Amino acid sequence: MRVLVTGASGFVGRWAVESLVARGVEVHVASRHPGEGSPQIVRHRADLLERGEARRIMDRARPDIILHIAWNVDHGKFLSAEDNLDWLAATLELAKAASAVGVGRFVGVGTCFEYCWPAEGNCDEAATPIAPTTLYAVAKDAARRVIDEMNRFSFAWARLFYLFGRFEHEHRLVASVASKLARDQPALLSQGLVVRDFMDTRDAGEALAIMALSDVRGAVNIASGMDVSVADIAKRLGEISGKSRLLNFGALPDRLDEPPRIVAQVQRLRDEVGFNSPRSLDQGLAETYEWWLRRVP
Amino acid sequence: MRVLVTGASGFVGRWAVESLVARGVEVHVASRHPGEGSPQIVRHRADLLERGEARRIMDRARPDIILHIAWNVDHGKFLSAEDNLDWLAATLELAKAASAVGVGRFVGVGTCFEYCWPAEGNCDEAATPIAPTTLYAVAKDAARRVIDEMNRFSFAWARLFYLFGRFEHEHRLVASVASKLARDQPALLSQGLVVRDFMDTRDAGEALAIMALSDVRGAVNIASGMDVSVADIAKRLGEISGKSRLLNFGALPDRLDEPPRIVAQVQRLRDEVGFNSPRSLDQGLAETYEWWLRRVP
Repeated sequence: MRVLVTGASGFVGRWAVESLVARGVEVHVASRHPGEGSPQIVRHRADLLERGEARRIMDRARPDIILHIAWNVDHGKFLSAEDNLDWLAATLELAKAASAVGVGRFVGVGTCFEYCWPAEGNCDEAATPIAPTTLYAVAKDAARRVIDEMNRFSFAWARLFYLFGRFEHEHRLVASVASKLARDQPALLSQGLVVRDFMDTRDAGEALAIMALSDVRGAVNIASGMDVSVADIAKRLGEISGKSRLLNFGALPDRLDEPPRIVAQVQRLRDEVGFNSPRSLDQGLAETYEWWLRRVP
Repeated sequence: MRVLVTGASGFVGRWAVESLVARGVEVHVASRHPGEGSPQIVRHRADLLERGEARRIMDRARPDIILHIAWNVDHGKFLSAEDNLDWLAATLELAKAASAVGVGRFVGVGTCFEYCWPAEGNCDEAATPIAPTTLYAVAKDAARRVIDEMNRFSFAWARLFYLFGRFEHEHRLVASVASKLARDQPALLSQGLVVRDFMDTRDAGEALAIMALSDVRGAVNIASGMDVSVADIAKRLGEISGKSRLLNFGALPDRLDEPPRIVAQVQRLRDEVGFNSPRSLDQGLAETYEWWLRRVP
């Protein structure tokens, strides 16, 4: 079994690769900076934004399965960046190249931003309307629609929710609080009343790997299914670090345009994909905090 | 006022260009086979499927408005052809290039196949659900969704319905019947009970031109708003040609999977775009028949 992974060096991709390798799969990665290979990982230098590159990779890697994670996710910019159009085009080209060489399965990565979030309850793959309102989510949703309609291979779509973990951009919530606490600096926060679904990226990577190797089709939420407020996340990090005194709630304004609740229904992930051993939130946060402690001077 | 037209040599595009020229607009066309220019038409050699080509055209033409008609519409293939993905990617690249140079307006061309056709009544831009079921229509719809979300210029989306006229592929309905009659050959037909909205391509081209020069935004049906059965179309051609005896209804099987009715609501086209002087169906059919008479030996 040979799996081609794009975005393999990213926040989630690195853990998907690790999980695939642990399952004895031959992993091929396509990356602009592929680095050194290993007996179980074949690395190909490739820029998927270059026309024709997808087909060249396909001819070299000849994968049975594609796990396509690569996309622009530059913090603070990606929701409205026009290179979402380039990544959509690159994704279509990858799907077309996969079709041309007879790849059997294609798993793409979507986002909770595709949903029209319900005010109560959780986002459900079948029941919750799709109504993306950012260029990022519209482009992701468009990719799903088009590839699904191709009907040329087994196709699944992994919708990621809120993630945290090692290597996270320092301006994002968990990394921001954890790094401040690790540095003994105050963490400025809003009241943090909004509720989100947070998952450790290592779990997300493992779930993607299992999903790639499964034959589950259609959209699947990759998430914890647990609701936690932003304030609770910060408080837990305060307790883990023993530095709750550094948490400064209310120092930042609450954003009025934030949806109050974004939480996933995860029945498909558990029952159909078979991913049912996520880390506890406290364990993930503690390990993330430890990671930051080792990073700060 | 400078308008860049893609697909300018096609079935509809040629008439859009003619109509723009008649309105005194400076027309730029981007085409793989641009041919000779004229005082009012600047022709650029361009293959929009080549990466970077959209931006090069934009730098050369510097249009105020883009009327993007080009797409693969090979008869018998285009509904499921995978190069719909290439045309979607090319369309996104055109939109991104337009955004980069500050184009003020972008009019794209969609299709009645984007709609979930109602069993009764007409397809309405606001009220009829969007539910494309072919790769062609899914890709068109995806283009609309993404470009609309860019929100970088005035954007409108022209949904074409059933067209007929000169230069039509001979295997399509009107051309097929008209060319057979012109050759004094029998025209084999089903019972022809399904009802469609037919418009002369010259009208469709003119409507596109007016729409490009307007500031109407969003989806607009480009259609006649009149329902006519396929059998009626054939009967009228029989009367026009005086060769009704060559019409052989029932010689071909009725297709069970054909939607019984696809007809447009055209209020937006009439009242907002201001296109309200279409040819009569009989006039269009008569002129099409005359054209075929001149073509056959």
